[in-house]
Amino acid sequence: MRRVYLDHIAATPLLPEALDAMLPFLNDRFGNAQSLHAEGQSALEALETARESVARLINAAPAEIVFTSGGSEANNLAVKGLALAARAKGTHIVLSAVEHTSVLNAAKSLEKLGFTTTLVPVDGAGLVHPGDVEKALTKETVLVSVMLANSEVGTVEPVAEIARVVKGRNILFHTDAVAAAGSLPVDVRALNVDALSLAGDQFYGPKGAAALFLKKGTRVLPLIDGGIQESGRRGGTENVAAIVGFGAAADVARTRMAERAERTAALRDRLLDGLPARVGHVLVTGSRTSRLPHHASFCVEFVEGEAMLLSLDMKGIAVSSGSACTSKSLKASHVLLAMGLDHATAQGSVVFSLIETTAAADVDDVLDAFPPIIDRLRKMSPLYTQFLKEKTP
Amino acid sequence: MRRVYLDHIAATPLLPEALDAMLPFLNDRFGNAQSLHAEGQSALEALETARESVARLINAAPAEIVFTSGGSEANNLAVKGLALAARAKGTHIVLSAVEHTSVLNAAKSLEKLGFTTTLVPVDGAGLVHPGDVEKALTKETVLVSVMLANSEVGTVEPVAEIARVVKGRNILFHTDAVAAAGSLPVDVRALNVDALSLAGDQFYGPKGAAALFLKKGTRVLPLIDGGIQESGRRGGTENVAAIVGFGAAADVARTRMAERAERTAALRDRLLDGLPARVGHVLVTGSRTSRLPHHASFCVEFVEGEAMLLSLDMKGIAVSSGSACTSKSLKASHVLLAMGLDHATAQGSVVFSLIETTAAADVDDVLDAFPPIIDRLRKMSPLYTQFLKEKTP
Repeated sequence: MRRVYLDHIAATPLLPEALDAMLPFLNDRFGNAQSLHAEGQSALEALETARESVARLINAAPAEIVFTSGGSEANNLAVKGLALAARAKGTHIVLSAVEHTSVLNAAKSLEKLGFTTTLVPVDGAGLVHPGDVEKALTKETVLVSVMLANSEVGTVEPVAEIARVVKGRNILFHTDAVAAAGSLPVDVRALNVDALSLAGDQFYGPKGAAALFLKKGTRVLPLIDGGIQESGRRGGTENVAAIVGFGAAADVARTRMAERAERTAALRDRLLDGLPARVGHVLVTGSRTSRLPHHASFCVEFVEGEAMLLSLDMKGIAVSSGSACTSKSLKASHVLLAMGLDHATAQGSVVFSLIETTAAADVDDVLDAFPPIIDRLRKMSPLYTQFLKEKTP
Repeated sequence: MRRVYLDHIAATPLLPEALDAMLPFLNDRFGNAQSLHAEGQSALEALETARESVARLINAAPAEIVFTSGGSEANNLAVKGLALAARAKGTHIVLSAVEHTSVLNAAKSLEKLGFTTTLVPVDGAGLVHPGDVEKALTKETVLVSVMLANSEVGTVEPVAEIARVVKGRNILFHTDAVAAAGSLPVDVRALNVDALSLAGDQFYGPKGAAALFLKKGTRVLPLIDGGIQESGRRGGTENVAAIVGFGAAADVARTRMAERAERTAALRDRLLDGLPARVGHVLVTGSRTSRLPHHASFCVEFVEGEAMLLSLDMKGIAVSSGSACTSKSLKASHVLLAMGLDHATAQGSVVFSLIETTAAADVDDVLDAFPPIIDRLRKMSPLYTQFLKEKTP
């Protein structure tokens, strides 16, 4: 059966350019980048070239890049590492209510060590308002973390505006750009952030390589203590092959970003307009105007996200019902609840996230397949039966 | 120039079997293992097969395996995660003085959070004595960590004997088996440990995949907070390709371990006997009897490790002068100092660690290349000149 893969937010295919770049490091160039001999230096050289590529993607200096094993590690290093390093100044952290679980749960771990957290609310589109961040700041605040884009609802947050209210107060500002980097232009100077997380596997690089940008002079306690790798900020033998693939994906992203965004945004809009037009009681979630170019998300009333996902899967269409990190927890998404949706509606979440090879025919398949699936699922839904009964006197 | 690679402890080449197993996951099978659709399930299936392979290598149950991005992460998860989870019971940790920097520095981070650490001494062969561990235990002790094998001096520690004095006291016992697993038989039941770290890149698997064994029922706080991956013990998208390669390497290790050990041990012994016979003032470091099969380490007096390493590299021979994690720090090894060597002698550390393809001709090359290199380096050494002067009246 033909498969239509529309789950960018969970995983992207690996670019052939990235795989080609990686293969030598899975073959002859297997050395440890910290070894002083030729085999080590050959690995180190590639590592530093990749560091330059990743830095260039976000307008950072190479020395400001700390490689990690993934976006969640980068977020944990940022939240825990920055907060613990600034602990003498204060123990209060401010996060948006729609952060990724790796940020939220890192803060929960810090609470066990004496920190307190304030969650800033969002509006119905999932947008954080800079004024609300400002209100949350106290004299004890040492760290603010607000994401650049939300993978569940596609909303792109006004991070530069938020930075404006945070900076100049001796408070560190981190943004989780895992869902955004590689898909949207990201400039750490324009955003004016102290730390920014990004992950190669969100833009056609391999799993296993990500990075935390740390502005020059920013103190951090390592999450993984150990050797002198990453200038003492992250111990452990570097995964050279994956990092090289990450660098290659960053290079491709720089050249193809605009074209990718234009192509996917047109198809995304067909979904955002087309599904609610074909199926009743379907809400678009997230912002329409400040939105990831490849992201179309909905709540379908009277239907459960997992049932939609599995039904679409049987028709050859791969989508998410939310974050892959929590897909099996069967809880309503904290993001949707924070946006003011009720539990029942939040259960009907479905996310179509396009990849660069998504074709118009793929979107047509979704538009054709979706209505009968929803019809069938709603026929089995007691809530929908009740809703119809109440409507029809 | 022909290269002779004798730096197993820094990095091993990737097995063709492991690369072959990985490639599908760097191509079509790119799904996120947490996704419920076919692409996700295809990744999950491979992840769980790899978990079985890794579990089998160390006689664990698959559910007792937590995948991490490397040995250092596994060690940090063990030391910090176990100690913090047991914090209500006490805040004292016992480590051997020769642990890897990822263990030692993880404990230093815990000291900032109120823990205290006792370092247990070793003897001249680098061996930890169970009685010394017992003496270090207090009512406050919650965790003991003693490595299974030391990558700098090759010594294999009496972990099962140490477990005997630790267990039955409500104290957790972790062993860092990163240098040992895959090269020596490792049985978590026979060792009677609560936690054990191992890394695929130490036995011909890829970089980027390692594991922490956690005995069923052992509480741990995640190092990387986030999603529900690894049963909530390690957040972050799983690096499926690397983990699959790790599993394949574990399968190969089980079948070839004895043969590899026999072959390399014979060549190792030629180095351990041959180098001191050909060059004066060369000490074998570590235990002769309780030793990694692929490991030959020495201290060469009046010569610096880095100079030896670079000289050998120019002759096509790749070796370490200690741990790759600290190779550029130019400090004398804490392992050698703990074994009672003075700073000057410890600076002359050199480690030849064999891989499975190391041939007798490679060892011959080393035995031929080494004496003239040492001669030349000693001629430039003021310390050696002084030594000769004092010897010759």
